[in-house]
Amino acid sequence: MTAPPLHCPRCGRAAEGFDGCRVCAGEGIGVNTPPPLADLAGLDLASYPGGPWGWPKALPTPGPPVSLGEGNTPGIRLRIEPDGPQEGSAPGELWVKYEGGNPTGSHKDRAMAVGLAAAVAAGADTVVAASSGNAGAAAAAYAARAGLRCVVFTNERVPAGLRAQIDALGAERVVHRGTVAERNAAMAQAVEKQGWYPLTSFSWPSPGGNPYANEGYKSVAYELARDFAERRIDTVVVPTSRADLLAGVGRGFRELAAAGLLPEVPRLVAAEPAASAPFTAALRCADRADQERRRVASRPTVAFSLGEERPCWQGLDALWRSGGTAVAVTDEVITAEHRRLAAEGLLMESSSAVGVAVARELVTAPGALVVAIGTATGLKAPGG
Amino acid sequence: MTAPPLHCPRCGRAAEGFDGCRVCAGEGIGVNTPPPLADLAGLDLASYPGGPWGWPKALPTPGPPVSLGEGNTPGIRLRIEPDGPQEGSAPGELWVKYEGGNPTGSHKDRAMAVGLAAAVAAGADTVVAASSGNAGAAAAAYAARAGLRCVVFTNERVPAGLRAQIDALGAERVVHRGTVAERNAAMAQAVEKQGWYPLTSFSWPSPGGNPYANEGYKSVAYELARDFAERRIDTVVVPTSRADLLAGVGRGFRELAAAGLLPEVPRLVAAEPAASAPFTAALRCADRADQERRRVASRPTVAFSLGEERPCWQGLDALWRSGGTAVAVTDEVITAEHRRLAAEGLLMESSSAVGVAVARELVTAPGALVVAIGTATGLKAPGG
Repeated sequence: MTAPPLHCPRCGRAAEGFDGCRVCAGEGIGVNTPPPLADLAGLDLASYPGGPWGWPKALPTPGPPVSLGEGNTPGIRLRIEPDGPQEGSAPGELWVKYEGGNPTGSHKDRAMAVGLAAAVAAGADTVVAASSGNAGAAAAAYAARAGLRCVVFTNERVPAGLRAQIDALGAERVVHRGTVAERNAAMAQAVEKQGWYPLTSFSWPSPGGNPYANEGYKSVAYELARDFAERRIDTVVVPTSRADLLAGVGRGFRELAAAGLLPEVPRLVAAEPAASAPFTAALRCADRADQERRRVASRPTVAFSLGEERPCWQGLDALWRSGGTAVAVTDEVITAEHRRLAAEGLLMESSSAVGVAVARELVTAPGALVVAIGTATGLKAPGG
Repeated sequence: MTAPPLHCPRCGRAAEGFDGCRVCAGEGIGVNTPPPLADLAGLDLASYPGGPWGWPKALPTPGPPVSLGEGNTPGIRLRIEPDGPQEGSAPGELWVKYEGGNPTGSHKDRAMAVGLAAAVAAGADTVVAASSGNAGAAAAAYAARAGLRCVVFTNERVPAGLRAQIDALGAERVVHRGTVAERNAAMAQAVEKQGWYPLTSFSWPSPGGNPYANEGYKSVAYELARDFAERRIDTVVVPTSRADLLAGVGRGFRELAAAGLLPEVPRLVAAEPAASAPFTAALRCADRADQERRRVASRPTVAFSLGEERPCWQGLDALWRSGGTAVAVTDEVITAEHRRLAAEGLLMESSSAVGVAVARELVTAPGALVVAIGTATGLKAPGG
């Protein structure tokens, strides 16, 4: 079995490499090029073992799994204090799916497990990821597990805990002090000249991460559908930057629905920090052509792992297909939610609080069942 | 339903409070006083949902569960490089059960989930734990979840990451600069005068932690038995200090065997740092009466969360009943194993490396299946 070909879902052209559609990039739009949706017909959702490797046929990757026990993260129901306007109405249910339980402490493990298997299958000896955080740590861990060399391009803003994690896992950490364009150029050169296997993107505008790796995120949708079983999830809220997770979750739900394993795809909502909210801005435009081209200023935020100037097309596509939307919350709201989660026993990364804060706004409808993806543990940077 | 009475398994007397058998303590032996073993007859192991709350009837605790999604941690098979003596023989299998995937990053979550439910059932408004680490963080998280106040008595050696975690979770951290005896006295006074519910012990010699809370550890055994199903686990290696986890795992396996859900109880092995190895020393004595009274010097070790001068009786009992033993490894071996695990993608606390290092020594028999409990993530103190 060889890996299936990749195509651009926007213009239909075949893709070269793992770095998005070059034609659409020429129009200023970063479009990822996923493999075809998997056919899940005949699978039994109740006995899905969880994790990206739970259903091997759902993955594009030939060769043996690379795994550290990722996936099967718990759903935790949060308290909702009813307030004024909904007084007397039946409250909805607010859940968080806690991805901090993964081996390196974030959802990125699901993608890097699949990405490293793809790298091994491609005969690579070195993988490279550009990351200011969790993706770098996950790449380092799964490269170690697979026995491949790993180089992580970071910037100077990486929190100390993450730096220590990447170093302890044996990756070579290269701090780039230049612009993103310079970092991208360095990575492109390593990929093209030295044959390093890219786990994140290195073109502009960014299409999102490696499309094979991203298939690992579909398992989040499978697990949600399995764990909530007969209960209908109304909305899944995903903290969004380049929308790899959002797009992967959307693809997973679509595969389940196509196979008759799920009656209806939940509405997806991209949660963003107000300081950097391209999806929220884009969806205010009436016209999809304008949405694709919307740009915003990206300012610093406490949710340091989020922040883009443009809405990655894969994220827009996921929102369009699920009838979803995007919601931005201020740093003040994010910080308050971070504290509120800790006061309920959950120490998560601030980016996770972005999702929960948005979910809390959406759960006011009586009987609504809203799940936020809690993307990472707070242990790497307990202050934020 | 009220909580079942506690008895001393060594002398048979009824226990008062949660701090071990006072009669045996008078003989200089710290003996925990567990509730009766649960009757698991009629349960189906294959459909056990995992975690301490997976089988409510296995727990002594009345009242609703307190949960943050703990349990169901993954088993990960490690590489074994065959070396000299076993050349040509079929290698055994070395697995680690990665407890760092729990909500606060350690196995302690299983106990504190049950301990906080017991505290709520007892009508407590404040819980107290003496801990230099993971237990304090777990107590803080589950107290927050249950809406109870939490006080953690620590010493000055707590790593910064753990301190930050405990603080972020809203516990009151009290640093005791005095002796352990003084700390115990302060905790005893809080329990007796102020009615605080104790989650760890405060008497001398220590019997181990709260016996209701410890019932949460039985779920480690249930999950292992479920996940390995038809395959026979030869040996389970448990990093051991006061032996709460070791005793809980042993009780879980005994319950399964008594109910006919497991053909044979695996051999349990206590893994200790050589710098502080009371079980290893004790089991060199021929006579159980001497084993119970064995004392060693406890020196500092890289495995900072381990270290006792006496073998807690509950641990000896678990080893006796399973035909097990204790093995000590030097700090040099622990450090090398810690690096070796990281080189395979697993960043764990040094104490976890103690267990894996011992398991690696025991897996040389052809066909042997050895599981080490990887007790905690390395994210709280990446250097060690």
